Amino acid sequence: MNLTKRCIAEAIGTMWLVLGGCGSAVLAAVFTAGEYNIGIGLVGVSLAFGLTVMTMAYAIGHISGCHLNPAVSFGLWACKRFPSSELLPYIIAQVIGAIIGAGIIMIIASGQAGFELIGSNPLATNGFGAHSPGGYSLIACLVTEIVMTFMFLMIILGATDSRAPKGFAPIAIGLGLTLIHLISIPVTNTSVNPARSLGPALFAGSALLSQVWLFWVAPILGALLAGFVYNSVFEPNRDTVRELT
Amino acid sequence: MNLTKRCIAEAIGTMWLVLGGCGSAVLAAVFTAGEYNIGIGLVGVSLAFGLTVMTMAYAIGHISGCHLNPAVSFGLWACKRFPSSELLPYIIAQVIGAIIGAGIIMIIASGQAGFELIGSNPLATNGFGAHSPGGYSLIACLVTEIVMTFMFLMIILGATDSRAPKGFAPIAIGLGLTLIHLISIPVTNTSVNPARSLGPALFAGSALLSQVWLFWVAPILGALLAGFVYNSVFEPNRDTVRELT
Amino acid sequence: MNLTKRCIAEAIGTMWLVLGGCGSAVLAAVFTAGEYNIGIGLVGVSLAFGLTVMTMAYAIGHISGCHLNPAVSFGLWACKRFPSSELLPYIIAQVIGAIIGAGIIMIIASGQAGFELIGSNPLATNGFGAHSPGGYSLIACLVTEIVMTFMFLMIILGATDSRAPKGFAPIAIGLGLTLIHLISIPVTNTSVNPARSLGPALFAGSALLSQVWLFWVAPILGALLAGFVYNSVFEPNRDTVRELT
Amino acid sequence: MNLTKRCIAEAIGTMWLVLGGCGSAVLAAVFTAGEYNIGIGLVGVSLAFGLTVMTMAYAIGHISGCHLNPAVSFGLWACKRFPSSELLPYIIAQVIGAIIGAGIIMIIASGQAGFELIGSNPLATNGFGAHSPGGYSLIACLVTEIVMTFMFLMIILGATDSRAPKGFAPIAIGLGLTLIHLISIPVTNTSVNPARSLGPALFAGSALLSQVWLFWVAPILGALLAGFVYNSVFEPNRDTVRELT
Repeated sequence: MNLTKRCIAEAIGTMWLVLGGCGSAVLAAVFTAGEYNIGIGLVGVSLAFGLTVMTMAYAIGHISGCHLNPAVSFGLWACKRFPSSELLPYIIAQVIGAIIGAGIIMIIASGQAGFELIGSNPLATNGFGAHSPGGYSLIACLVTEIVMTFMFLMIILGATDSRAPKGFAPIAIGLGLTLIHLISIPVTNTSVNPARSLGPALFAGSALLSQVWLFWVAPILGALLAGFVYNSVFEPNRDTVRELT
Repeated sequence: MNLTKRCIAEAIGTMWLVLGGCGSAVLAAVFTAGEYNIGIGLVGVSLAFGLTVMTMAYAIGHISGCHLNPAVSFGLWACKRFPSSELLPYIIAQVIGAIIGAGIIMIIASGQAGFELIGSNPLATNGFGAHSPGGYSLIACLVTEIVMTFMFLMIILGATDSRAPKGFAPIAIGLGLTLIHLISIPVTNTSVNPARSLGPALFAGSALLSQVWLFWVAPILGALLAGFVYNSVFEPNRDTVRELT
Repeated sequence: MNLTKRCIAEAIGTMWLVLGGCGSAVLAAVFTAGEYNIGIGLVGVSLAFGLTVMTMAYAIGHISGCHLNPAVSFGLWACKRFPSSELLPYIIAQVIGAIIGAGIIMIIASGQAGFELIGSNPLATNGFGAHSPGGYSLIACLVTEIVMTFMFLMIILGATDSRAPKGFAPIAIGLGLTLIHLISIPVTNTSVNPARSLGPALFAGSALLSQVWLFWVAPILGALLAGFVYNSVFEPNRDTVRELT
Repeated sequence: MNLTKRCIAEAIGTMWLVLGGCGSAVLAAVFTAGEYNIGIGLVGVSLAFGLTVMTMAYAIGHISGCHLNPAVSFGLWACKRFPSSELLPYIIAQVIGAIIGAGIIMIIASGQAGFELIGSNPLATNGFGAHSPGGYSLIACLVTEIVMTFMFLMIILGATDSRAPKGFAPIAIGLGLTLIHLISIPVTNTSVNPARSLGPALFAGSALLSQVWLFWVAPILGALLAGFVYNSVFEPNRDTVRELT
């Protein structure tokens, strides 16, 4: 399929990742019924992020490979499964999709009386130090994002290896992202995805936007490292390597 | 299999969607053990809605295609995968099933002393404005239902594309519906399904019934748009397109 | 494989169903960390029941068919997929397994200081009226158990139909049982399984034991009805019908 | 693939099991948003442990078999599916991975102001008696760990039997571990894995370290028993037995 159509798929998918993941956090993390909080909490938000990737991997995996994430594109490139020439178009499409997703959240959320962008992480933005949900230091946040993205890419590269069972990669990858959120939302609000970090930050103001650099540097570093390790240590059979999903 | 038997399957499946999804919300969303609320909350209700579709897709997908939703039937039709001649019978069967499902919830719920149809969304009905669970405006609700149903159909059309892995579509579609509920219950109580909206509203009184129009218009609009986009942009291989599941 | 070995598998599997499902409710439904309840609640218990069946269906489905439930054996028999001659041995094995499972819960639970069998449903027993967790009437409980078991068998019969995707039945059936619990724990504590009801009741005292009749009658009725409906309406291709899983 | 590379995979995988499972418990089990606790609780921690195994089984199952657990290696050996000569290298790799995983949690957790190793189970360590999260006796904890590991191995041995559906074993095994945690976190904080118990205990101090023996003895006993039972009772077809996954 031609590159334009694949980029449209990447934009739609990344829009869904941000709308579903960040949107569930903004709209439904806390929701009261009488005296009780019946909101989805961190378990629900973690599930939502993972399911955006799982559903899109089944829906558009056969079209674009369903990266939805510049770090994933870099990691696949480092493992020699994605061509240099398509890195930039894919990343631009992902960023556009993420911005549209964040914009749709703004439209919906502002339909509730009294809506304001407040708190340490408005619109489910990522942050460190003063903007870490649990107040974690820059170093702790950096380590978290590098290690989590490294393992995310190990899951992606392993589950899409030609020696792994066919058809199950979207389950492993989607629920792998859920797992990463179960661990690390309190630390950085969980990025492992530069596009997902940039989209909401554009709407959330300069304090959040000034921290986005970490969520480009750390995930891409972790992903490159995973691509290099998987390729050099676990020697996939090059001739039969398949695209993501 | 003949149309009558397929319509029986659609009626049973849509009955299950309403009984399981709305029923879990009515019976189990809040449940106290001593001083603690141990009810299933919005995560449990979201899971329940998704699992009704996943279980039925494996159980009757080979019989009727398991639409369980007029918007799904319209979306498949717009993507040229479902014949015009069967739209009306399918939708009638879905509506009948939804009414039966809501009726069974009434029978069970009224077996608890003090049962009353109260609150902004009795019997898990959908609504906007004054009947939006979180008080969201008409526009926010309209946007939500159009976008959510658009993405629901993108998942369905993609996951049942002949190029997608075989057998996994019920997982993608069912958990996709779970994801949609994780995002949007606070906004509209989540419909994306005109039959699911009509069934409970018939028992819940005129205020709720007068809002059902939005949950026919918006989901069907979103579904038609998705059918058109998927068909025209992602060019599935027509000769080998399979039915849902 | 010979009948004795298959009955051993059924006993182990039903032991796991009761130990995992009822055990999680007894040990972990409510658990406090400081001022907060972080217990698994009804979502966790529902997931636990479903996962006992899913894990066993993959582990022993190829040995015994993994019924783990007299109602399932009756339903498969009514659909002409299980021989009359093996009904009694299977049911005896299931009941023995359920009793062992309940016994292991007793051993573990009584290792906590102050353990007592108290409340309306000690040891996660099933009940109606005064022993319904939410105080639901006999009629509401009867309807619930008949309808839930009917749909449980529809899922089982459909997902193991030769026309359904291969290998996915344990997911549909296990998560179908999770769904049933998400809906109906407040009503009857959810049975849909006569052996699961009998095991804990034997340890919980005469008040609970005197209500077990409903959880034999209603699930078996619902299952027989489903077997008859599926067989007569949806006409599976008899020659290729497969065993459960 | 050579033994060194397989041991690297085991170390990475066990690092992920400890970092994901214990890390989610340490960082996210309780997390407050205003007056509400929106942390992941025992459901989220149970899901996290299971998903570490599921994701790794798809990612490295084709490399090392993805044991990640000395008890699993012993159980497979007892079922004659794993050679004696590789037991020690695998176990050493698993223990190294577990220690690295616990070390990474320490680095991240200590990045939050006021971090201390306090409570009965610091760093999500396992314990009995005074160090059982719910205060369960030594005997109750011993029974729990033996029975849970026995059933964990029954799931592993059954789901990877050549007669079971292909490709689904990681789902059964991963969610089986989730189920085991849903049941038994209040009893022992759930081990069923000697390496997972040792790693955090090394950082948590001598009181916890002095209890680690039980979490080597009981899981290995349960696993050996399961290997013996599965092999002798359920007679898998030796010629076609596959590796884990």
